[in-house]
Amino acid sequence: MNEEKRTEINELGEFGLIRHLTKKAKLSHQSSKLGIGDDAAVIQFKEGKQTVVTTDLLIEGIHFDLMYVPLRHLGYKSIIVNISDVYAMNATPTHVTVSIAISNRFSLEALDEMYEGIYLACDKYGVDLIGGDTCSSLRGLVISVTAVGEGNAEDIVRRGGAKEGDLLCVSGDLGGAYVGLQLLEREKSIFLENPEVKPDLENQTYIVGRQLKPEARKDVVELFSSLKILPTSMIDISDGLSSEILHLCNSSGMGCSLYEEKIPIADETYNMARKFNLDPVTCALSGGEDYELLFTISPGEYEKLENHPDISVIGHMTEKERGVILITKGNNIHPLVAQGWNSFRHN
Amino acid sequence: MNEEKRTEINELGEFGLIRHLTKKAKLSHQSSKLGIGDDAAVIQFKEGKQTVVTTDLLIEGIHFDLMYVPLRHLGYKSIIVNISDVYAMNATPTHVTVSIAISNRFSLEALDEMYEGIYLACDKYGVDLIGGDTCSSLRGLVISVTAVGEGNAEDIVRRGGAKEGDLLCVSGDLGGAYVGLQLLEREKSIFLENPEVKPDLENQTYIVGRQLKPEARKDVVELFSSLKILPTSMIDISDGLSSEILHLCNSSGMGCSLYEEKIPIADETYNMARKFNLDPVTCALSGGEDYELLFTISPGEYEKLENHPDISVIGHMTEKERGVILITKGNNIHPLVAQGWNSFRHN
Repeated sequence: MNEEKRTEINELGEFGLIRHLTKKAKLSHQSSKLGIGDDAAVIQFKEGKQTVVTTDLLIEGIHFDLMYVPLRHLGYKSIIVNISDVYAMNATPTHVTVSIAISNRFSLEALDEMYEGIYLACDKYGVDLIGGDTCSSLRGLVISVTAVGEGNAEDIVRRGGAKEGDLLCVSGDLGGAYVGLQLLEREKSIFLENPEVKPDLENQTYIVGRQLKPEARKDVVELFSSLKILPTSMIDISDGLSSEILHLCNSSGMGCSLYEEKIPIADETYNMARKFNLDPVTCALSGGEDYELLFTISPGEYEKLENHPDISVIGHMTEKERGVILITKGNNIHPLVAQGWNSFRHN
Repeated sequence: MNEEKRTEINELGEFGLIRHLTKKAKLSHQSSKLGIGDDAAVIQFKEGKQTVVTTDLLIEGIHFDLMYVPLRHLGYKSIIVNISDVYAMNATPTHVTVSIAISNRFSLEALDEMYEGIYLACDKYGVDLIGGDTCSSLRGLVISVTAVGEGNAEDIVRRGGAKEGDLLCVSGDLGGAYVGLQLLEREKSIFLENPEVKPDLENQTYIVGRQLKPEARKDVVELFSSLKILPTSMIDISDGLSSEILHLCNSSGMGCSLYEEKIPIADETYNMARKFNLDPVTCALSGGEDYELLFTISPGEYEKLENHPDISVIGHMTEKERGVILITKGNNIHPLVAQGWNSFRHN
């Protein structure tokens, strides 16, 4: 079917492959003193800045399914999930390293596609690709990204700083990535049963996009800076709202009251969840991979964010003894439990 | 056979596993402001320092064989191969992140062993484990380590600074790791044919140790500092002497004359190579994984290192047109070619 050119990786050798894939890497930061091509990269951060480091591993068959994830999107997402963690510290991502292990199933053209996505994300978020490692795998694709960023010591926001009475806020809307995944999985099953049937994504570009091409909330961190807001705690939503709220509460030694009616869910997400006979709120609570920012602010900051269309106040922090609870639309109270995505359940 | 306790990974879940494996991680550097347990780690480097970043991926079946590599040694080596790259910049490693993907073949006890080796290397080399990622794999073990270090801008040594007339030097001795691997592979083959036969490593602790538990040359970088030597170029030997000399020459735009008789080879390496009908010099040139430092110094620095028992001058840099050549004991001249270990040849 695919009549495009196929170049085998082993025609280039390891160093040839690295040169090929990284020739488009340009150093745009003044702090980037040395990029790819030596034993290590060298960065000179401005004086007084703190350095933020985070890393994530993406494994084929666990984190992504190449039957419906285009390689370009995978490359893009591999950068996003890492720099999202840097934003969650209220810091600015500046540099990434990307390591890949590939089987001989992958052609050079396929890797070029993946790196197109990597460079696209690097360009959009202003990060320099400064290093990595490239090797073969016996089976499947492995991507390991490390993101480095910088921030002022006084601006770094951890998970553990929430105080009683602080407002719990979230950016954007939740559950879309999970519902998008269900749609993609459904079409995969149909295709596997009958390869003649064309995938029907029902023009669900919003939820499919949330799954395949998430964005990191750079704009929210910039909003904090321009409004002079310093969240008391923050985390990004990779495992699902419940799981992340529990992290903030555990780290801060706090309880939390979350209001079901306040949880932001897009119409597209709501309608597709219903089609799948899923509870939209459960999708938001446990779905994960939305890469929105969950944070707490002191009540005095409320006015600054009150009318912002992309920030929702969804609850408030309480003393620890009151527990971490969900208050439903019908005014019932449920303890919040983490049923977030856990890669070990895939075993 | 193994009657020891076996705890399944999925009994703990992802966060429980991370807590268990990282509970021994202590932050010893004043610069470590935040370690494991948040979205990212935070480091505050001293003013004026440059930050060095390097990363390596280790894949089961490609880079290591668990039939003869004990997990404790694997953990240790995974740190060494990364911090060796930091030393090769003439910088000091300070922090590492460790990500692992594991199949359910691995018990908690097995991972504990691996982390024992990781902590041992961190302690010995004074680096703090500050982050990572833990997830499942469909098959095999994947380890991704990123090392971060610091150095003064004026002390950082790249591959590309060698000048004509500079002396080419190497620390320690070469080829041992490769010959050690041959011995381990031989015993593996014998064992697979007849599991009753006990492995006979012939008391070859030196060469087996070179393969299974390499060290990084922290002492050599400290020597440079105490003797006030600034190498003009440097690289660590992971792929074999030939390959690394070619990297230095390419980056520096230089040629090089390497003298066969000067290449340091330990007696244990020499004798075992002969037993395997291998040319010991070829083992040194193409074997790799010795993690020694290859560097150039200006001739004026020669006296400072002349009598050092652990540093050998093995050649000198020439103008590019003279090529990269090996001068044999019989005074024959061969162009040096890279036949170093290339993970893509395993495909």
